[in-house]
Amino acid sequence: MNKIDWVDKKNLTMLADFYEFTMGNGYIQNGIEEKYAYFDMFFRSIPDNGGFAIMAGVEQLIEYLKNLKFNNEDIAYFRSKNIFSEEFLDYLRDFEFKCDVWAVPEGTPIFPQEPIVIVRGPVLQAQLVETMILLTVNHQSLIATKTNRIVRAAKGRQVIEFGSRRAQGYEAAILGARAAYIGGCIGTANTIVDRDFDIPALGTMAHSWIQMFPTELDSFKAYAKVYPDNCYLLVDTYNTLRDGIPNAIKTFNEVVLPLGYRPKGIRIDSGDIAYLSKEARKMLDEAGFPDCTIMASSSLDEYTIRDLINQGAKIDSFGVGERLITAKSEPIFNGVYKLTAMEEEGKIVPKIKISENVGKITTPGFKQIYRLYSRDTNKAIADVITLHDEEINDNKPYEIFHPLFTWKRKKVENFYARKLLVQIFDKGENVYDSPNVHDIKKYCNEQIDTLWDEVKRFEKPHEYFVDLSQELWNIKDELLKRHK
Amino acid sequence: MNKIDWVDKKNLTMLADFYEFTMGNGYIQNGIEEKYAYFDMFFRSIPDNGGFAIMAGVEQLIEYLKNLKFNNEDIAYFRSKNIFSEEFLDYLRDFEFKCDVWAVPEGTPIFPQEPIVIVRGPVLQAQLVETMILLTVNHQSLIATKTNRIVRAAKGRQVIEFGSRRAQGYEAAILGARAAYIGGCIGTANTIVDRDFDIPALGTMAHSWIQMFPTELDSFKAYAKVYPDNCYLLVDTYNTLRDGIPNAIKTFNEVVLPLGYRPKGIRIDSGDIAYLSKEARKMLDEAGFPDCTIMASSSLDEYTIRDLINQGAKIDSFGVGERLITAKSEPIFNGVYKLTAMEEEGKIVPKIKISENVGKITTPGFKQIYRLYSRDTNKAIADVITLHDEEINDNKPYEIFHPLFTWKRKKVENFYARKLLVQIFDKGENVYDSPNVHDIKKYCNEQIDTLWDEVKRFEKPHEYFVDLSQELWNIKDELLKRHK
Repeated sequence: MNKIDWVDKKNLTMLADFYEFTMGNGYIQNGIEEKYAYFDMFFRSIPDNGGFAIMAGVEQLIEYLKNLKFNNEDIAYFRSKNIFSEEFLDYLRDFEFKCDVWAVPEGTPIFPQEPIVIVRGPVLQAQLVETMILLTVNHQSLIATKTNRIVRAAKGRQVIEFGSRRAQGYEAAILGARAAYIGGCIGTANTIVDRDFDIPALGTMAHSWIQMFPTELDSFKAYAKVYPDNCYLLVDTYNTLRDGIPNAIKTFNEVVLPLGYRPKGIRIDSGDIAYLSKEARKMLDEAGFPDCTIMASSSLDEYTIRDLINQGAKIDSFGVGERLITAKSEPIFNGVYKLTAMEEEGKIVPKIKISENVGKITTPGFKQIYRLYSRDTNKAIADVITLHDEEINDNKPYEIFHPLFTWKRKKVENFYARKLLVQIFDKGENVYDSPNVHDIKKYCNEQIDTLWDEVKRFEKPHEYFVDLSQELWNIKDELLKRHK
Repeated sequence: MNKIDWVDKKNLTMLADFYEFTMGNGYIQNGIEEKYAYFDMFFRSIPDNGGFAIMAGVEQLIEYLKNLKFNNEDIAYFRSKNIFSEEFLDYLRDFEFKCDVWAVPEGTPIFPQEPIVIVRGPVLQAQLVETMILLTVNHQSLIATKTNRIVRAAKGRQVIEFGSRRAQGYEAAILGARAAYIGGCIGTANTIVDRDFDIPALGTMAHSWIQMFPTELDSFKAYAKVYPDNCYLLVDTYNTLRDGIPNAIKTFNEVVLPLGYRPKGIRIDSGDIAYLSKEARKMLDEAGFPDCTIMASSSLDEYTIRDLINQGAKIDSFGVGERLITAKSEPIFNGVYKLTAMEEEGKIVPKIKISENVGKITTPGFKQIYRLYSRDTNKAIADVITLHDEEINDNKPYEIFHPLFTWKRKKVENFYARKLLVQIFDKGENVYDSPNVHDIKKYCNEQIDTLWDEVKRFEKPHEYFVDLSQELWNIKDELLKRHK
């Protein structure tokens, strides 16, 4: 039941900023709607000052682009505004997507300034998809990136996504859980995500279960009788150490063992988790349940998990909710979508957007990204953004240099180069099948293994090299000089 | 075209935490699935240490509850888990919602500890809706609350929602824009929100429009010819003061005026907005366009807007994006859903959840909220949470007291009392029509006017009184004593 398509269930063509339509109408009025334009989606900084981000959302982006269309209700809506020409409305009615699109595959570590999506096509169309491209990729990349931080902090302990109830809307819950799985969660609390994406849904009981029975012990025993083979008990409804854990142990001994099973675990959802987990571990071990796991859940994130582990908390798995699903510490992935070139008589003319802020100046041109890996270590050395048809020959040394401080140069030897951008649409036709989410997760994990630990640390990570090829740098420098 | 239903387009019954199903099956196995339970949704603290929050999301909650159902695919999914009884699967197949539901109407200022949604019904059902009630109300209340902070900081200047591209998923963009409108935005950049909720979509041009023409002046003139009656120009693509504004003025003089219109405005999207807006104002005034407005947009929120206004920035309207649509400063609305009572032989038996943290102890019982207003000023004095059938007689003085520091008491006189909770479902039947979003916005504005300025300020706002009636307090105290 994989691949139920959350985007297709409602047509989201109209989820577009209004200016995309006023400009579209303007392009038609000026007779330039068919001029070919090139747009890059790129982002400017990594959330939480991290060393890398993770690409996600391409599957949903494809579904959106495959289903672009305007119905009569949409046309009537635009006509009611009294600012759009009939020619434009005809264009929308007969809309047929004709763009070429490239994207970095989901699960790939990505870095600032890299074109993670490129759209080439008639300017009206390439402009129209701006909002949805950004929205889709920004959201899922944000959550995949945040989740991976939490998973790294957990140092091999399981992390489960528990955030639906605090997510920012329904797709934030559903596609956020998908992105969290890519980023390293082993499952989710959200049932619909299991049904539609085959991501394991997990969960046992709320405090209400315990409250519904005369006593906590009654509630535990009632639960254990129904699920003796999967008995996780929530122990903090009244008093964790005085009542909850002793009642759990009693239940394990009196119900679970006699039915021929080993108890699975307990969950602590409040109080001082470090202290309680250590006490709980002792009590469970002494009672003969060293295999009974302890799950913690309570406003956790990478920082609290790191602290808990540093304090010697005895936790086997973490249920992580609101701070993961909203990426609380930095809830914005700042991807932008900028015109980088247009075609004049079949020739690519690079375009630039200047800013007082040097970091906000765009890199013009139609691009590709190469990732250079060491043949010795298989570790990623640097990314080089090149012109789209430029080839990097990995049979000979290649000189990379810092795009601002150009005297910083380094010769890379004994490497292999991999192109990161793959074409997903060719003249409007989808030419790329998204892998299933399990394969994406596996690929993501493998790719993160190619990053040096220095890139992965939380505090002041090494800034991974993202350089421009000499040819691309020349084009940018030339345009900057012309505008200044 | 109002009321296109974003929830109904996809059935979201399966957007539920998995434990709601394991518990549901457990209730059936224990023969208590029809026992009546009472749940409160309430929240524990106001985002950003604000003085009040704003209720939102009830319309979508109603749509969700009206459409609860399980299809064959859902049943097959559960069966494949091998842990659910056939009796439970039959229950789901024949599912018919039978609960009573009360909610505080959208747009109402709300405060911590108040039951903003109450569900009463068979425990299996009342438990099943937990995730979606929380998700729906948490999200929209978060955004309405955040937006109102931004709108108040803007002190009468227009605020427009520009955040779709950075929202956390599609409904975060769509329903977030709806919540932002309730909270005080005058419009949105998101076209689909206009089509479906009749909330004005606004927008003119991106930097790409300017880049598509040989020069900035060419691009401005081309735009002005298409939209002479609605000519807003984006002036920061190359150099705001040197090029952008002079080119805009030239366009106004050479295209807009000759066609018989006045120019509408300019937009500044980068750079030092305070400085640029003051210079822009001077240049526009000197050129004879004192009526030409200045819009600013660039990572704005209540704090940057307050600072810009304090610095004398000349801004007429603000386009506010990512920090509004994600509620960046605090992206979580911490609503919870707790069992408060059950029925035994037709009698309500209050239930409590204890916690080490006093603020996390729940208030038991089936409740109502009264808001007491001064007859002299029409200002809200206090909220009193009572038993559901308790009446507050506003013809005589009423004594309120602090629920923790019970010696703090105050006699309220010359007041009128208004019940805040309205019934939206009666035995599973929808009995409340959601007002349209314009009426909700108007009501919200009126209700915020009933709050003292002391409650509305950003820094250390006055803590509005939310008290318990003596009867409700006695029940809680009794249960606390019994459990300690």
